[in-house]
This record gives sequence, C-alpha cells and structure tokens, in this order.
Amino acid sequence: MHFTSEQRLGDGVLERAFTLGEVPGILWTPEPATGPVPLILLGHPGGLPKMYPRLAARARHSVADGYAAATIELPGSGDRPRLPAVDAARADLRRALAAGEPVGDDVVDRLVLPLVDQAVPEWRATLDALLELPGIDGPVGFAGGVIAVAVRLAVVEPRISAAVLFAGSYVPRSIIEEARQVTTPLLVLLQWDDEGNDRQLALDLFDAFGTGEKTLHANTGGHTGVPAFEGDDGSRFFARHLK
Amino acid sequence: MHFTSEQRLGDGVLERAFTLGEVPGILWTPEPATGPVPLILLGHPGGLPKMYPRLAARARHSVADGYAAATIELPGSGDRPRLPAVDAARADLRRALAAGEPVGDDVVDRLVLPLVDQAVPEWRATLDALLELPGIDGPVGFAGGVIAVAVRLAVVEPRISAAVLFAGSYVPRSIIEEARQVTTPLLVLLQWDDEGNDRQLALDLFDAFGTGEKTLHANTGGHTGVPAFEGDDGSRFFARHLK
Repeated sequence: MHFTSEQRLGDGVLERAFTLGEVPGILWTPEPATGPVPLILLGHPGGLPKMYPRLAARARHSVADGYAAATIELPGSGDRPRLPAVDAARADLRRALAAGEPVGDDVVDRLVLPLVDQAVPEWRATLDALLELPGIDGPVGFAGGVIAVAVRLAVVEPRISAAVLFAGSYVPRSIIEEARQVTTPLLVLLQWDDEGNDRQLALDLFDAFGTGEKTLHANTGGHTGVPAFEGDDGSRFFARHLK
Repeated sequence: MHFTSEQRLGDGVLERAFTLGEVPGILWTPEPATGPVPLILLGHPGGLPKMYPRLAARARHSVADGYAAATIELPGSGDRPRLPAVDAARADLRRALAAGEPVGDDVVDRLVLPLVDQAVPEWRATLDALLELPGIDGPVGFAGGVIAVAVRLAVVEPRISAAVLFAGSYVPRSIIEEARQVTTPLLVLLQWDDEGNDRQLALDLFDAFGTGEKTLHANTGGHTGVPAFEGDDGSRFFARHLK
C-alpha cells in the first residue's frame, strides 16, 4: 500500500489516497489519531472520481462516528483499464432496456460475475493492508456498493462483522445461492419503486441470506431516493455490531 | 369518558383506567403534567388483562419519550361481550390450520372485518375524548394492534399523523384495497419467518399503501421475535412525525 497524497478535510478527518498494486483507493482516518478504531469499507457502483463527493461525505460521517473508512476503485471503472467483456455485457443490457425487453440471466452474469471475481480479492488484499496500519483495528464493516460483490465478500471474508447492503443493482442467480452461506449480520436497503431493480429478486436475495440477523429496510422512492434517516439507521446498525 | 381507577407507576407515569360507554381503556400520562404532549394510541391483538404488562411497558417508553399513551379493549375480547360470529370464524380458522388447509378469504373476512367495523369508531370516539383532556394535544400516532383496524383508522381518521403497523395478523383483501387511500406516513414491521402470517400478502399490503412515505422493516424471526432495536426505531419514527 503506497500513499500517494494526503489532505486534511477539517473536522478532524485525514484523507489519504493510496494505490495497492494497480488498484487506487482512499483512506479516511481521525486526526489527531485516537486509539485504534474499527474500519468501515465503503462500497460504490464504480468510478471513484465521479463518486468522490458522496464517498467523502459518507466517510466524514463514519469518522465522526468513531471509525476509519476506506474505499477502492472497482475493476474496469474510473481510471482503471476497461474490462471489454463487461463493457460488452453493459451494452447488451442497455440494448435490452432501450428495447423494453427483459434482461436475460446471461447478460447479468456477464456483467456482474467478472466484477465479483476480480473485486473481492482486491477488497481482501486492501483489508490485509489496512489492518496492518497503526490506528486501525477490527472489527470491520462493509457498506454499499455492488451488492453481488458484497455478498461474495461476506461469504469469504470472516473479518467482516456486519454489512449494510443496497439492493439496487443486478444480482446473478448464482449469487443468490451463495447468499445462503452468509452468516454476517446484515442491514439490506431496498428502494421500493426502483424501476431499474427487480424487486422480487431483491426479496428473494434477502430471503436467501443464511444469517440469523438480517433486517430489510424498504422505502418509498426510486434508486437515488434513499431517505436521509437511513444514514442514521446504518450508523446505529454498525454501532451495535462494531463497537 | 369515566376514569375508574388510577395508580402511579413510578418514573413519572400516571396510569388511569377508564370506560368510554361500554369500552374499557387505559391512559398513561406524565406526572407531574408538563405542557400538552402528543398522543400515541397503542393497538394490541385483544385481551387487555393478558396484554397489560406489555402495553404498560410500551406506554412507559412512550411517556419517557414525551407522549401520552392510551389503549382500549378490542370488541369481543377481554372482559367485553363475545362476538359469536367472530368466534365462529376463529374456530373455522383453527380447524383449517390444524388440518393444514389454506385459510379461505371468507374466513379471514368473517374474522377481521367485524372487528374493523366496530373497533374503528370506538378508537375515534376515544380520540375525541382524549383530545379534550388537559395535557393532551395533537399530533397523534397509532402503533401496533390488528393491522386491518389500523389501516381503516388511518384511512378515515385525519388526526392520525403517523402509524407504526405490525404485519402479523390476517388481512382481508378488501382492506388491501382500502390501503391505497392511506396518506399517513407509515413504518410497517414484518417478521420474515412468521409462520402464521402470509408474507406475500404483507408485502402486497405494503405495496398498496398510497402514502408517499412508507418504510418496511423486515427482520429474521417469528411472530414474537421483533428485535428490541425496533422499539428504538419506532421511537425515532414518531419523533420525526409527531414532534
């Protein structure tokens, strides 16, 4: 992990950009450093430069709540090399949506599974590196991002103690099967009127999770209409499990 | 409204039993009285003597949060005269469940609709009387109880500004249609593994509500397994809408 820049955001938040191999990321920590703090990994749909303002806002919230926060770029997004097969699947998806046709399972698989396969080891390597830093300690939470990535990560990564998932992106059916192995406490957010999201598939995914503690928060409104109070609910969920 | 007894519960809660016509009820208020406080109506599945400990605990919570709280007995329950037609429907329901048969719509209608038709005017008359008392003011919230009663009450009673509903009892299909007229902000609780509850019907009901602000909280576990943190979530929901 190489830190490439740092800036002070005010309110006691130090922001450091880093690279881990080819993967760019950002780490936010309290400054001055307190004792070791738990860590929240911030997922997002890809494209760090575009997502930066929202991620920085979420990170400042997390640091104010007593955590470190970190994110990395998704494979094929932002300044990383494109993934031509994923781009081709995305083009197929857009064609299907523009034509008003149903989105086939194969398109979803070709769009999402390569991201899962590549992103999950990158998140795990990032976690290895972050937990070696002074001032960051377990437990670890994961919040948001491509839900299929979060599901696989929750299955394979025992250091993740709690996750807030956003049921707002396509989910391959094989990932719903994998979800049965998740034993991590979960808070799942679903926007009830999200036209780009298959509500029944999201409910099937929630049903599949094997964990003994899962909560679904469904709210009126479209994809980007998550109510502000859900941010507070997420904070309380993490406080119950990470503190 | 005639007060029939009163006792001090400690922690600044005055509990008064009352009757309104033939209907027994209980009112909990802060003591010493502060200024006028908003009111939360506490629904329950029927049987005040049996439900008393849980209702009193919820009421103490409400008073500590700065509300008055009140409940009344359901028609046909507790010390009130039985409703033979409803009892007959309940016997049919139990026969169907014992035989592992599906519960017919007509059984649900005969079980629930008479309660709705009788209970809703009783709640409204109670509200009339309570809002005349010194120390109680609007806005008014409704929490829990037979969800079909709460739906009708939300439709016909403009003084109810927010409601927490528990999707844990049978819902006639005509009530799902009525739900489209509800414009009150709602928080709906659903126990995901409640074997006595039709999950799909509960989701259909949530979908039907016409209000622009509705939130569903679904949790792992059976009918009586609502997690303790949902009590806090309910408090925050009411605080957003009643204060």
